[in-house]
Amino acid sequence: MTFVDHNVHRFEAEDIVRWFADIYEISRDNHGVSRPAFSATESEVLNYLSRLAQSTELAISRDQGQNLIVSLEEDTDADKFVLIGSHVDSVPMGGNYDGLAGVLAGFACLIKAKTQGIRFTRPVKVIAMRGEESAWFGPCYIASRALMGTLDETELAFTHRGDGRSLADHMNDVGIDLRSIRAGQPLMDKSQILEYIELHIEQGPLLLGMNLSTAVVSGIRGNVRYKNIRCIGEAGHSGAVPRAFRRDPVLAVAHFLSRLDDSWLTILQKGDDLVLTSGIVCTDPERHALSRIAGELNFSLDVRSQSADVLTLMSNLIAEEIDSISDERGVQFYLGEKTQTPPALMDTALVNALNQATSRLGFEPKSMASGGGHDAAVFANAGVPSAMVFVRNQNGSHNPNEDMDIDDFLIGTSIIFEHLIHDKV
Amino acid sequence: MTFVDHNVHRFEAEDIVRWFADIYEISRDNHGVSRPAFSATESEVLNYLSRLAQSTELAISRDQGQNLIVSLEEDTDADKFVLIGSHVDSVPMGGNYDGLAGVLAGFACLIKAKTQGIRFTRPVKVIAMRGEESAWFGPCYIASRALMGTLDETELAFTHRGDGRSLADHMNDVGIDLRSIRAGQPLMDKSQILEYIELHIEQGPLLLGMNLSTAVVSGIRGNVRYKNIRCIGEAGHSGAVPRAFRRDPVLAVAHFLSRLDDSWLTILQKGDDLVLTSGIVCTDPERHALSRIAGELNFSLDVRSQSADVLTLMSNLIAEEIDSISDERGVQFYLGEKTQTPPALMDTALVNALNQATSRLGFEPKSMASGGGHDAAVFANAGVPSAMVFVRNQNGSHNPNEDMDIDDFLIGTSIIFEHLIHDKV
Repeated sequence: MTFVDHNVHRFEAEDIVRWFADIYEISRDNHGVSRPAFSATESEVLNYLSRLAQSTELAISRDQGQNLIVSLEEDTDADKFVLIGSHVDSVPMGGNYDGLAGVLAGFACLIKAKTQGIRFTRPVKVIAMRGEESAWFGPCYIASRALMGTLDETELAFTHRGDGRSLADHMNDVGIDLRSIRAGQPLMDKSQILEYIELHIEQGPLLLGMNLSTAVVSGIRGNVRYKNIRCIGEAGHSGAVPRAFRRDPVLAVAHFLSRLDDSWLTILQKGDDLVLTSGIVCTDPERHALSRIAGELNFSLDVRSQSADVLTLMSNLIAEEIDSISDERGVQFYLGEKTQTPPALMDTALVNALNQATSRLGFEPKSMASGGGHDAAVFANAGVPSAMVFVRNQNGSHNPNEDMDIDDFLIGTSIIFEHLIHDKV
Repeated sequence: MTFVDHNVHRFEAEDIVRWFADIYEISRDNHGVSRPAFSATESEVLNYLSRLAQSTELAISRDQGQNLIVSLEEDTDADKFVLIGSHVDSVPMGGNYDGLAGVLAGFACLIKAKTQGIRFTRPVKVIAMRGEESAWFGPCYIASRALMGTLDETELAFTHRGDGRSLADHMNDVGIDLRSIRAGQPLMDKSQILEYIELHIEQGPLLLGMNLSTAVVSGIRGNVRYKNIRCIGEAGHSGAVPRAFRRDPVLAVAHFLSRLDDSWLTILQKGDDLVLTSGIVCTDPERHALSRIAGELNFSLDVRSQSADVLTLMSNLIAEEIDSISDERGVQFYLGEKTQTPPALMDTALVNALNQATSRLGFEPKSMASGGGHDAAVFANAGVPSAMVFVRNQNGSHNPNEDMDIDDFLIGTSIIFEHLIHDKV
């Protein structure tokens, strides 16, 4: 293990590596880690972080969303503060860095300030948030949207992929009082937040390609998502039903996805931004067979763009293709739950400040868009000046092979620390 | 319940309805029936049929494949005989008639001859066979191919969809000595079989469309099947990986199936026969998520045609499309186990005899091809003169909604009975 020896703020790298390893152990699964949103495992991670904060004499509290808030003792009652953070949940059998890296970056800054007696220019609070990943219930950014008062009543009824119980029940299990959320009341006063800053591993391959350790995020893709689209056809014998009599949902969905894929290419060729993913596709495991035309195929769809117009265009296109394929193939599509998140712009002044901090530390400043969605989008769309620091990472995220170099993490954390001790606005 | 009152051979229809109902109860599942190939449930059905045969003083025996053989007492030692039968297994959550109807038609003929003292022109044996459905292990016609000595050693190693144990193990469990099968020795002497006749529900909608109760089958589609094709791509974050960096197996398979679907249409337009089904399509339920590009997609493929040339053409086309899509999309396909069954022609003289029997009973004779595969194809390809009687059926087969009218069944059974008491060659 080697640690950066540049002109950066020195952190106790071996401590940080241990924190990552301890939390990995708390949440390890057959492959990678599983930290379900609003679960006991997630609470255990927050408890670990509480003990870590207490062991270095930091002040801890829980907000109304049962997220963990940590700060220097003197900042506990600050009227206004910079908020640093991310989420601690993960996708099923995901990687250890997605989310957690942003929380530990905040911890590293606080602990360094505390142990070395360094002063921030403004009060700083670190937040370790709960459920951000959509993999568990369908909606994303759940904890941060509850904080900003934008979690939808209907989304509370969405059900868990494993046990089928509602999001509301799971939130209740971890001690969250749902009355304010149901009333649409923010659980946190956003006027107190001077800035929201989130470090996160890059989830795509662009920093690797550019040979850079970090970048500052200038905007975040929004999305339109369908958790479970059902295509209903008619089951039948695979050999005995002639083509003209078939209502095969598998070929209908293959056709549908291929048409969307073609449109995707056309939209990119026009210079617009778009990614399109059907991550879940399944015939019914209890009924499907080699020799049976499937009666039904279920699939998900995740459409993302930096452009709200492209997201609207794709929503309309999906509806049109479904109409046309239903007619052609005698199948029926049920779109089911649809969730939407608008694209978000990061705060220009904050982006510039973080890029300048990068330069002061001797690294090349770089701005880039974020393909993945993040809690920062929620704070930004609520009007809080927000920005993110991306850290280079191999093999993408949402899988056990996430591979962030700790040196790159230390550079990203140094950039935030530099900003916290230098910039005043 | 009404029963036919035509100029047909009268059967004890209410007895037959009860046999179907009793066997339904033995094998009922959450939806429809499940009678797994080479299972205890299948054995229970054979035991029920044994007791039924004994209660009407028919002679019973088991062949080396642990299938049930029933005949009049005087025919037990016949050197040559007409063989009537079908299989008793079903697909998972399938219907009660597929297979079983052919066995009970044979029982009805024997019991009528026994109880009414009617003489067949030649000795008759009825066979209730085990595993025919490919849904459990991949290969089809397992029991009949073991009888004819054409069950492949490699197929014995294919594994069960539920418990992952081999076909050989399951055959051993129900008391089959595998040594002869492994040596490629037929378990039945085909030179003894004068004719093989199988009644079966039609698995497509053609008799319904023609408003006919029955038809005689003139040929059976062969197939080329891939039980589990794996398409391997690269898992990644659904929002963060640009299109050019993706290796998405879901869109690759959608593209592949859409291309095969296009070729299917072209082949039909040329006047050739073909059906194509991907009955199983699944991302990994333990790893897939709305917000993750799937790392892998597994799917099955079942291609059937009355033409051996079309089957060869499709095998080649599948290989070519896979090469081209792998190149275009950076994914890898593993075709896995491939099974093949040649198309089969029914015996012209026997088809004519059954059509003439149909006419004598006052019904319209009709010949048609069988889309589904049947044990009759195995006997035919082994050189045994074979034919089938199809009975009208709603909603296809391989599903719990199979809907055969008992009157149509009685007409089909009468046609076979008429043949057995009238024809000598």
